Amino acid sequence: MSSNDYTPLWQELGLDLDNHAGLLGVLSDAYRGIYLAQANRPRGMAYFDFVISEVHGLRIKEIYEAKRAGRKVVGGFCVYVPEEVVLAADGICIGLCAGAEVGTAEAERFIPRNSCALIKAFMGFKLAGLCPYVELTDLIVGETTCDGKKKAYEIFDELTGKVHVMELPHMKGPAGKRLWLGEVARFRETMEKLTGAPLTLEGLRHGVAVVNAKRRALQRLSRLREADPAPLSGLDALLVNQVSFYDDPVRFTAKTNELCDELEERVAAGVGVTAKGAPRLLVSGSPMAIPNWKVHAIVEGSGGVVVGEESCIGERNFRDLADEDFVTVEEGLMKIAERSLTIDCACFTPNDERPGNIAALCERLRADGIIHYALQFCTPYLVEAYKVETSLAGVPFLRIETDYSMEDFGQLKTRLEAFIEMLR
Amino acid sequence: MSSNDYTPLWQELGLDLDNHAGLLGVLSDAYRGIYLAQANRPRGMAYFDFVISEVHGLRIKEIYEAKRAGRKVVGGFCVYVPEEVVLAADGICIGLCAGAEVGTAEAERFIPRNSCALIKAFMGFKLAGLCPYVELTDLIVGETTCDGKKKAYEIFDELTGKVHVMELPHMKGPAGKRLWLGEVARFRETMEKLTGAPLTLEGLRHGVAVVNAKRRALQRLSRLREADPAPLSGLDALLVNQVSFYDDPVRFTAKTNELCDELEERVAAGVGVTAKGAPRLLVSGSPMAIPNWKVHAIVEGSGGVVVGEESCIGERNFRDLADEDFVTVEEGLMKIAERSLTIDCACFTPNDERPGNIAALCERLRADGIIHYALQFCTPYLVEAYKVETSLAGVPFLRIETDYSMEDFGQLKTRLEAFIEMLR
Repeated sequence: MSSNDYTPLWQELGLDLDNHAGLLGVLSDAYRGIYLAQANRPRGMAYFDFVISEVHGLRIKEIYEAKRAGRKVVGGFCVYVPEEVVLAADGICIGLCAGAEVGTAEAERFIPRNSCALIKAFMGFKLAGLCPYVELTDLIVGETTCDGKKKAYEIFDELTGKVHVMELPHMKGPAGKRLWLGEVARFRETMEKLTGAPLTLEGLRHGVAVVNAKRRALQRLSRLREADPAPLSGLDALLVNQVSFYDDPVRFTAKTNELCDELEERVAAGVGVTAKGAPRLLVSGSPMAIPNWKVHAIVEGSGGVVVGEESCIGERNFRDLADEDFVTVEEGLMKIAERSLTIDCACFTPNDERPGNIAALCERLRADGIIHYALQFCTPYLVEAYKVETSLAGVPFLRIETDYSMEDFGQLKTRLEAFIEMLR
Repeated sequence: MSSNDYTPLWQELGLDLDNHAGLLGVLSDAYRGIYLAQANRPRGMAYFDFVISEVHGLRIKEIYEAKRAGRKVVGGFCVYVPEEVVLAADGICIGLCAGAEVGTAEAERFIPRNSCALIKAFMGFKLAGLCPYVELTDLIVGETTCDGKKKAYEIFDELTGKVHVMELPHMKGPAGKRLWLGEVARFRETMEKLTGAPLTLEGLRHGVAVVNAKRRALQRLSRLREADPAPLSGLDALLVNQVSFYDDPVRFTAKTNELCDELEERVAAGVGVTAKGAPRLLVSGSPMAIPNWKVHAIVEGSGGVVVGEESCIGERNFRDLADEDFVTVEEGLMKIAERSLTIDCACFTPNDERPGNIAALCERLRADGIIHYALQFCTPYLVEAYKVETSLAGVPFLRIETDYSMEDFGQLKTRLEAFIEMLR
């Protein structure tokens, strides 16, 4: 996808060069067809187009060079990974490849056929030698959010030898909070062992400030999507959220704020990506890892506009900030842990905040309807859909259960078109 | 299934009488075809035949009368429910209906189609009005063992209004142990609130003694299955284990020990249910709730004999005893919590003890092969099958993934017959 030749680097990382070239070709075609074909995009999206064009290129080179300069690389698959602590230790924190249907046959030698697409993908990317990020990691952080990931991490650790699992409680009482505080403290020790240096108060303040600034930029982007007409497509907003998981956080924040400056002008001028009054959809549920753009592409190809993602790659990632008011490392870790426990992941029981959060989000974004999106076999979100739907009585609600394949594209399109038509 | 007329009782409990009569008819036919048709059964199985014939009859009447006399009834679906604490509070502890394909359409209105058969069954039994046990409970104890149950309990609580969820940790370090000790203490408070009386040391000693005696009887039964020829069919042994979850524990223990006395005579005389040298199978994995007898029936109809169940309805339920040496209620609760943390459930990560436990069991029972049995969508056991299989290299190993339906009976039979043939 890039004019530079990263082949020697990919070779050094042990990627399967032929298959990797194929993957980048498919990704490039999909991006052109889905993203670049959009009309009336903000100029500020050019940066994100560039980032995607260099997703396995320049960014990998950057991380590779940082690693050679002694920085540690930490990968993960979840918003509970304490990015602040990684940054405090001068590490690089990245989301690993989990959004495309690759290496399925290889993955199914290790995990059940009935695993969700995200889990199959992270196993498949590793086994097929297609994820340069995972090869650059010094540490991979797993968590006990769901059965599928929790148990797959055991095998992923056999394959990589560098998985550190954090136990996330499943209830939010005082005992669960105590457990999680302990896990964040244990993660600090793991980072200290990895870097050989103690975490400092200054470092932690820096880490929290950087991640909070990123979250503030994403909050700002989310607020700009309240406007009608929406100044930005859901596809582009989703992309920005996806990129937030692996771009350099300071650069990302600056570029996202630049985009928001432009969007503010658009909103003031009443400029949007659709006509005013286009049906506005909130997508809620399982995360959409890059390059999973299927539902957004269908919705926006059918005259609707996605105005929000109630998802880990979306609101759940940035809704709450960590409290920056702390005077010791221990207190800072507590603030970080407390923030992550405000996340309304369906792995908690009960997860009573989520329906209210969705209702509030729906109102703020002036959404006309909710698409409850669950990956097939994603039990927590699939079961919770019942409570979400019943608690939002009156809001048009469509449940979708899908994976990364294009086999159900036609069927999804028919259902989403009908739903959007109903909202007009 | 019984000559007595329990119809008024079932009516009072709100069962769907027509469907319930149908269910009992099917169960009775299945029992006759699978159990009573077996040759050379021990006389001591007559008690268990009787128990099954009165599964929704006499036992329900007993519990109903105990309840009217003021005793509390606690139901659950898991070996982590602290039965000792229930008995300490003079309560009755029972496993609820979860082993048959009933109420599927009703269940699927609330939970995903891709839920495991056990979860669909407990939802279905309740929704279809077919489980008299659930109607008699004062409290239902849930646990956070797997995503499917954890999230379904939220809906089960909406339907019943009496679910108490215990948070089981997913890692076995000191933090997890602390969490679980706290949960057992919290359960004690719930029981005290339910009964209105404080738990006494005497009561807790009694509870632990009764449950340990039951476990000892089941351990004895397991040891008797080491003999070749096996003195008892796997079907009958499975039934005894299933009945252990809802029979009166003192009576059950006496009857199981009577059966064991007879089996000892058989072993001494070299009497078995099959010829000496018949292929011996260990079934490992997901629990088989009553009346789920499918795999055992196929194996034993194909010339094999099941000699053990490495399962929650099996070894995991009775392998370890609680330490009876305690002098305060708090210490007793700690001993109970410590015992349950020795259980090698696949919900833990890692669950390193399990492969070694299976290997030891395999050796003790002189098993020729292992059938790894997982309910479809039972993610913890399905994923863990990989580690179990790779750690047991050299032991013939067959993976089965099934549900409660009879649709795959033919296919399973073909695979199991071929596996057994290979072991000869």
